[in-house]
Parts: sequence; structure tokens; C-alpha cells
Amino acid sequence: MEMIYMDNAATTRPSEAVTDKVSSVMRDVFGNPSSKYILGVEAEAELKSAKKLIADILKCQEKEIIFTSGATESNNTAILGAVRRNARRGNHIITTALEHPSVREPFLLLEKEGFRVTFLNPDADGHIHPEDLKSALDNETIFVSVMYVHNETGALQDIDALGKVINDYDKDIIFHVDAVQALGKFRFFPAKMNIDLLSASAHKFHGPKGVGFLYVKEGTKLDPFLIGGGQQKNMRSGTENVPGIAGMAEALSNIYTDELTEKQEHLRGLREYFVNALSDMDNVKIFCPDSAKTAPHILCASFKGIKSEVLLHQLEADGVYVSSGSACSSNKPGLSFSLASMGATKEELDSIIRFSFCFDTSKEEIDKVLELLRQHVPVLRQFVRK
Amino acid sequence: MEMIYMDNAATTRPSEAVTDKVSSVMRDVFGNPSSKYILGVEAEAELKSAKKLIADILKCQEKEIIFTSGATESNNTAILGAVRRNARRGNHIITTALEHPSVREPFLLLEKEGFRVTFLNPDADGHIHPEDLKSALDNETIFVSVMYVHNETGALQDIDALGKVINDYDKDIIFHVDAVQALGKFRFFPAKMNIDLLSASAHKFHGPKGVGFLYVKEGTKLDPFLIGGGQQKNMRSGTENVPGIAGMAEALSNIYTDELTEKQEHLRGLREYFVNALSDMDNVKIFCPDSAKTAPHILCASFKGIKSEVLLHQLEADGVYVSSGSACSSNKPGLSFSLASMGATKEELDSIIRFSFCFDTSKEEIDKVLELLRQHVPVLRQFVRK
Repeated sequence: MEMIYMDNAATTRPSEAVTDKVSSVMRDVFGNPSSKYILGVEAEAELKSAKKLIADILKCQEKEIIFTSGATESNNTAILGAVRRNARRGNHIITTALEHPSVREPFLLLEKEGFRVTFLNPDADGHIHPEDLKSALDNETIFVSVMYVHNETGALQDIDALGKVINDYDKDIIFHVDAVQALGKFRFFPAKMNIDLLSASAHKFHGPKGVGFLYVKEGTKLDPFLIGGGQQKNMRSGTENVPGIAGMAEALSNIYTDELTEKQEHLRGLREYFVNALSDMDNVKIFCPDSAKTAPHILCASFKGIKSEVLLHQLEADGVYVSSGSACSSNKPGLSFSLASMGATKEELDSIIRFSFCFDTSKEEIDKVLELLRQHVPVLRQFVRK
Repeated sequence: MEMIYMDNAATTRPSEAVTDKVSSVMRDVFGNPSSKYILGVEAEAELKSAKKLIADILKCQEKEIIFTSGATESNNTAILGAVRRNARRGNHIITTALEHPSVREPFLLLEKEGFRVTFLNPDADGHIHPEDLKSALDNETIFVSVMYVHNETGALQDIDALGKVINDYDKDIIFHVDAVQALGKFRFFPAKMNIDLLSASAHKFHGPKGVGFLYVKEGTKLDPFLIGGGQQKNMRSGTENVPGIAGMAEALSNIYTDELTEKQEHLRGLREYFVNALSDMDNVKIFCPDSAKTAPHILCASFKGIKSEVLLHQLEADGVYVSSGSACSSNKPGLSFSLASMGATKEELDSIIRFSFCFDTSKEEIDKVLELLRQHVPVLRQFVRK
């Protein structure tokens, strides 16, 4: 049975080129990048080359990239490091009800430490309105964090407009964007959108697990999170994961090619096709159906009357891998805060399935999944009682 | 020219089995361990199998192992997480002047936060005396951190005796051991030594960079450091680095075999041989010469009158890679705090070379390095003025 992997928002399969890159660096460039002899210099060169590649893609400076162990560390560093460091300037911080737990939890911790937190609610399609952000800003606001692409629905925020609202209000407010589901899907340039901090994770774009980065706009005041040996200009101590970083750069270099726009359009077309087909099924609610307002790779739907896990495992039996929500909250059973903030009912939340694609996803795979859904959904509705 | 790599305390070359393991897990077990379908279950099984292997080696429980991104994260988590969590019980914390910056820096941060810190000084051979620890303990002491094997001199602390002192004084004091240079070199069992927290890093024992673990004795109260998705029972959020973790376990399984004692004795013999040969050279000071009181793989010596980097690069020209101190402090130019605490003079500190071996180091390699030293040292002394 051919596998159809449609959980690319949870993690992606590393490309063959990435796996080869990681192996070859492990074999041939094993020095400690802090060492002063040639083996160290060669390892440091891998880091520099990865930085240059990322900086070229984001149109930023190489020194604005800090390597981390992944999205959680990037988000924790950005939020805790910037808010605590700038605490003297004000005690109000803003985020949204949509955020990943690695953003939400640091905000809750800061709230305990005495900061006043505003959680902005999205509309029913999962979008944060710039005017809502504008109303929330006050002269105590020092930090705003908004995720670029929602990991459950694919909802795409208008980061450009949100960045402008912040910048017009007070240029000193720090704007953090969790771009974990955005990087590797389309082009964007943080400096043009008034972004000060931006988080990314390699395993979401066919890179290795355990590595990511944080973009830190020059001049942004930030306390380091991991402290010790002073690597990365003291902004992130710890021996750099050279093979992982090289693998992350390899993954990005395979995505950010001249064909990216074409691949995006292909994927957006598939999403629209999938949305239209699901719309024809009874009692299916699609979250954020308008593919013009989402990233092309995520589609979340509620198959009312069927518990998520039942449908998930039924599809698994046919070799199709999907998710019953975000993998990151699988460890925390309970409702999705973010979908609830979009007005989803408990019944809808109980029956959610997230399909997430990659650029290799084909129309044949979508058709196969649709066929299975049309076959199983009515049967499951009839026989599986909640 | 054959390479002679003698900087294994900075980082080690991953074994072929480790690189293969990392590649095969990247290719075949790419699921997110939090996912509920078989690909997730398979990834979770890799984590469980790695945990079991580590637990068997340390004779601890599987649930006492938390995977991290390496030594810096393990040390930061242990120190900041345990001290802050237990702050109500007292405000005195103890460490030594020997510690790695990833231990030292968190202590300095906690000092700024209001904790009273005692830095214990070692004797001239780099050993902390149990009676000095005993005198430092008071009824406000909540936490003690001592490194097992000193990364610059190889000095081995009597962790057993130190753990007993702490336990006899107050069983509630948390004992953290930075075992980064100890794990993979000999056998030890944290529970038998009253250790509550123990840090390890894979790239120091032929595993991958960017991965390590923290042993947390059952019942030890600790705040998590990375927060978010709640992975690893909420003790360390972030998608686990499955290939790296599998590679780390592979590396340990290659070391902890029936041949370990024999390999240790071989290495200890080589160190003694090297020490004796260096002792015959003029104006060479060996730090912690007694190989019975050091780990077998580190030897630090001062070649008076020759700046460390001059000798380092001269040896490099002959294909021999050594260090002019710890790689981790290469980013922070200046004197070694720990060697200074052992009474080393500025002149000695300026001319330090650290040789660090692995189990594959041969007598032929040692002889070759000795030959080069005998050849270069007198010449460099004569011609290179400081």
C-alpha cells in the first residue's frame, strides 16, 4: 500500500539531499566550530554558508540569524528574551488566541511575572484584524507576537498590515512573528514588514529535526536564553549543531528556487480543489475555506458526528496519514484554544481533521483521499456513536 | 599527511555507526513522535529505545531521562530550573571555580537575582575537597553543582564523597553533576552517588552535535526550561530530535560494552606514558599529572615561554590537532578561571596546550606528538618572543 502522507504541518520527510548533507558534514566536517585550527575553521565555514543562504532568502544580514534547536527555543528566546530585557519601557504585551503553545506558554509565564497580556481574538476565519491590534496598543505596550500561518487552519495573517500598525503607533514596540508554518512555503522579507524577531524550524520544511533559527533585526534588544560558552556572539551559547544547520540550509536551498511561485500555485490549486470537493459533502465544516487567505498547505475540516481519532485511524488503515489537530498539542489533551477562539463548537472541535500537504502532494493523492472520505464518512456516521 | 586528532574534549568524530543511524532514522522514521498514527508511534519507539539504553547504562529509570539539545541546555535547565523552583527553601547555592561557562553563567545570573553563591576553590591539582564543601553548606543551602571531570585538566572529582557530604548534611539539597566529560569514558551510577541531576552531551562521546540529555532523579522538583507543546511530560517542550537522539544512543551502545574497562586501562596507560615523557622535557608544567585522579582522556600542560596558539598552529602544520584551552571559552578570550583557581600563573596560562584522546588514540600517535614537541618546543622557545 502506497503511503499518502498528509501531515506535513506536524513534520515533513527530510529530502534525500538533506539527509546526505547531514551525513557528509557528520563524516567530513566534525570539528568544533569554536576550535582555532582548520577543522574548526571548516565547521565555522559551514555555519557561515548556512547563514548567508538564509540571509539571502530573507534579504537580511547574516549577523541577524541565530541558530537554535528549533521553533520552541526560537519562540521562547524571542518572547522571554525581548520582553524581560525591555521591561523598563512598559509592561503591556500582546499576542493572539491562535498561537502555538511555545508562544502561548511564555506569555502565560510573563503574565505570572506581572506583565499585562492582551490576547487578540481572530474572526471566524482565523484572521486578526489590524484595527483590533491598533485598539489594543497603548503607551505601555512593548511587544507584539503574531503567528504568520496558523498551524491548524492555515490562516494567513496580514503581517504587512499588522507591522505597519505597530510601526505607526510606536517604532520601539518589538514585533515577533512565529513563521514556523510560513518559511519554506512562500517568499517574505522581515525587514519590509517591520518584523524585529522571526522564528523558524527546519523540520517543517524538509530539514532535520532539532534545528531552527531566530531572525533578530539589528538593534533589537534581547537577553540570550541559553547561556554559557558565548557562542554566536553570546546570543546563544552551546556548540552549534553543524550538520543540522547545514541540513537546514540545504532544505531551504531546495525550496527557494525559481520554481517556487509555480509550486505554490500548484498547491493552492490543490487546496481549492479539495475545499470544493469537501464543500459538496454533507455536514463538513471547513475552517478558513478561502485559499487566498491561507497558506496553500493546510486545510482543516470538521466531519460532524465522527470523533477525530476514529476518522484518523480509519484513514491510517488505508495508508493515509492526517492529524486530529496540531501534533504539538497532542501532549495536552483538550480543546484547541485557537479553534475555539474562532467560534468552533465543541461538536466541531471533537471531529476535526487537519490535512497538510507538501509541494510533492499530487492531485491523484487528493483524489484518493476524497474517495476514502466519501466512502468512510457516511458509514462511520451511521455506526460509530460518540 | 595522516591526521592526529587530539582534541576530543572539544568534540569527537561521530562513529560510522552513529552517522548511519542518524541517516537511517531521517530516511525511515521521519514521523513526529507526538503524532497518533503509526509513523508517530515508530518515532516514539526510537525515543523509548534510546531512553531504555541510557537508563540501563546509568542504572536509572527511563522516565528519569529528559532529552535536550546538548550540554548547555542540560546545565541551564538543571541549574535555573531547580534553583528557581526551590527558592522558597533557601537562597544559598554552591558550585566550584572549575565549572564550564554553561554552569558558571547560570550561577552568575542567579547571583544577580539575589541568590548567595559560594564558589569552591580546588587544590593545585584541580580537586575539590569534600571538607571544603562540608564547611560551605549551611541551613540556607538548596543546590550544589560540581563537574565530574574537568574539561581542561581531566581532574576527576570524588563525586561519591561529595554526594555523601551533601546527603549527610541535608537530603533535600539538590546535587547537580555536569558529567559532560565523564559519560562515555567510564561507568557510574547517579543514584548510588546521591546525584539528583546529571548533564550529558552526545558530541563528546562520538554522537551527533545538537543533542544531549539531563538525568532528573524521580521526585526532584524542577521548572521546565523550554516551554510550549508539553513534550517529554512537559519537562522539555519542542519536537524531539529523533535522529539525533537515536544517534546518541547508538554512540553510547558502542562505548558501554564488555571491553570498556580494558579500553579505559589502555587510555590511562597512554596518559601515564605521555605524562612521564612530558615530565622529562624542560619547563613543562603538567596540570593534574596523577592519572589515578583524572579521567584518562585529558592532559593539560604548559610549555613555558611559548604562546599556546603558536604551538597549536605549529602542531597543526604537522597534522596534529590540539587545543589552547577549552573550545567553549574560545569565544571569550581571557584567562581560564578554573586554571587560575588552581594557582596557575599568567605565564603558565598563556602557554597552555590541552591534549585530549579517544579510545582509538594509539601509542604511535602519542609517540609522533612527543617527537614533534621535542623537535618544535626548543626552537619555538628560542625564536618566538612573547
